[in-house]
Amino acid sequence: MTDKGRFISLEGSEGAGKSTAMNAIASVLDDWGIDFIKTREPGGEANAERIRELLLHSEHLDDNTELLLMFAARNEHLVKTIRPALEKGIWVVSDRFVDASFAYQGFGRNIAWSTIEYLEDWVVADTRPDLTVYLDVDPLTGLKRAARRSAKDRIEKESIHFFNNIRKGYWQRLEQNPQRIKRVDANQDIQQVTTDVMNVLNTYREQLQS
Amino acid sequence: MTDKGRFISLEGSEGAGKSTAMNAIASVLDDWGIDFIKTREPGGEANAERIRELLLHSEHLDDNTELLLMFAARNEHLVKTIRPALEKGIWVVSDRFVDASFAYQGFGRNIAWSTIEYLEDWVVADTRPDLTVYLDVDPLTGLKRAARRSAKDRIEKESIHFFNNIRKGYWQRLEQNPQRIKRVDANQDIQQVTTDVMNVLNTYREQLQS
Ligand SMILES: Nc1ncnc2c1ncn2[C@@H]1O[C@H](COP(=O)(O)OP(=O)(O)OP(=O)(O)O)[C@@H](O)[C@H]1O
Ligand SMILES: Nc1ncnc2c1ncn2[C@@H]1O[C@H](COP(=O)(O)OP(=O)(O)OP(=O)(O)O)[C@@H](O)[C@H]1O
Ligand SMILES: [Mg+2]
Ligand SMILES: [Mg+2]
Repeated sequence: MTDKGRFISLEGSEGAGKSTAMNAIASVLDDWGIDFIKTREPGGEANAERIRELLLHSEHLDDNTELLLMFAARNEHLVKTIRPALEKGIWVVSDRFVDASFAYQGFGRNIAWSTIEYLEDWVVADTRPDLTVYLDVDPLTGLKRAARRSAKDRIEKESIHFFNNIRKGYWQRLEQNPQRIKRVDANQDIQQVTTDVMNVLNTYREQLQS
Repeated sequence: MTDKGRFISLEGSEGAGKSTAMNAIASVLDDWGIDFIKTREPGGEANAERIRELLLHSEHLDDNTELLLMFAARNEHLVKTIRPALEKGIWVVSDRFVDASFAYQGFGRNIAWSTIEYLEDWVVADTRPDLTVYLDVDPLTGLKRAARRSAKDRIEKESIHFFNNIRKGYWQRLEQNPQRIKRVDANQDIQQVTTDVMNVLNTYREQLQS
């Protein structure tokens, strides 16, 4: 019997450096000879990518609808992509996962924390990430970085007030899950952030081996 | 201040005669001089119709995803179509509503009743139908009627066993909501079904006026 794969998620608001950190993590896992897949939310599976389209480009989506669609996409992602990989011993690295719903739909949209927890218990069940790297960036810094890169989608058009709330949502999750979620100061320059991310991975690996 | 509109839903499995009953109800409401809209689920609003497309034509949609998408569409329908109409005093007649989730996703897909109730309490909240006409048809009879009409979608392709379960789901809702849900024997011929539906409406109106 092969060991189950490990599940790593990357979190942080727009322009925090998640895609950049994903590349760093991928090269570390390659070095270690670990079989893994890179994926993302919302999306990471054919039907989930179709739901992502609705999420990013619908007009006037109600907040509750946004949360329900996020979990619909997440469920497809879990059932078709994440769980089958983990069962085969393949590691999964996801650009965002359930913590993002607490930050964005919880603190950003003011949906009750307990509602999101209910959906988490039901849909995510025991497929919780083993390790989450949270890239904590000042929202203004992050938005400036992201602005250099591409046109804004529905969520990126939100105000700075919205993104300050997102950050508070992530902090609350961090406080509630100190073992799993590791904070990296993403205000630093790319080299330093990358070094910190790699240190988090190395520490995680040492724990696995001890 | 205008009175709030009344909310009527039509339920029943494929080919039970919901669209036919909708026309009968519409002509009764017209006779009474009542302002109303006809709508349907999943759908009844622009974003909800896009979600309907995913529901009816996606490949291998997981059962939980189906339930989440149903409630995402329902939330849009409630927020943009149903509640605004009711608030203006306009009656709403919907071809299917939340009882269908208990029948199809509950009994059809075996999702826990309590999960659907949680979503109902959160999303539907106090916008419950005032009256539900349940067209109870033998599944074989219904499927034969529907087959004469159009090509099958993802759900209509299910087995007779599935539709027998749907019927049990509706019966359970009927048992739990005897005041609101009125059963009509939809195995009868169109004339008799139409007469029975009109009688339900007349009785409802008398109650309103007494
Ligand atoms: N620490 C950093 N300092 C300065 N620039 C950075 C840093 N990290 C990433 N960048 C740059 O900022 C931009 C956004 O980074 P990246 O795409 O990794 O963020 P992201 O969190 O994936 O954003 P999004 O949420 O929009 O996907 C990129 O152009 C990237 O090169
Ligand atoms: N009582 C009846 N006896 C015989 N045929 C009927 C009866 N009611 C409806 N039909 C016919 O059966 C077909 C299906 O009826 P209808 O479209 O009203 O059902 P429905 O419940 O809306 O179906 P669906 O769930 O597919 O929307 C139509 O061709 C209709 O004319
Ligand atoms: Mg990115
Ligand atoms: Mg119909």
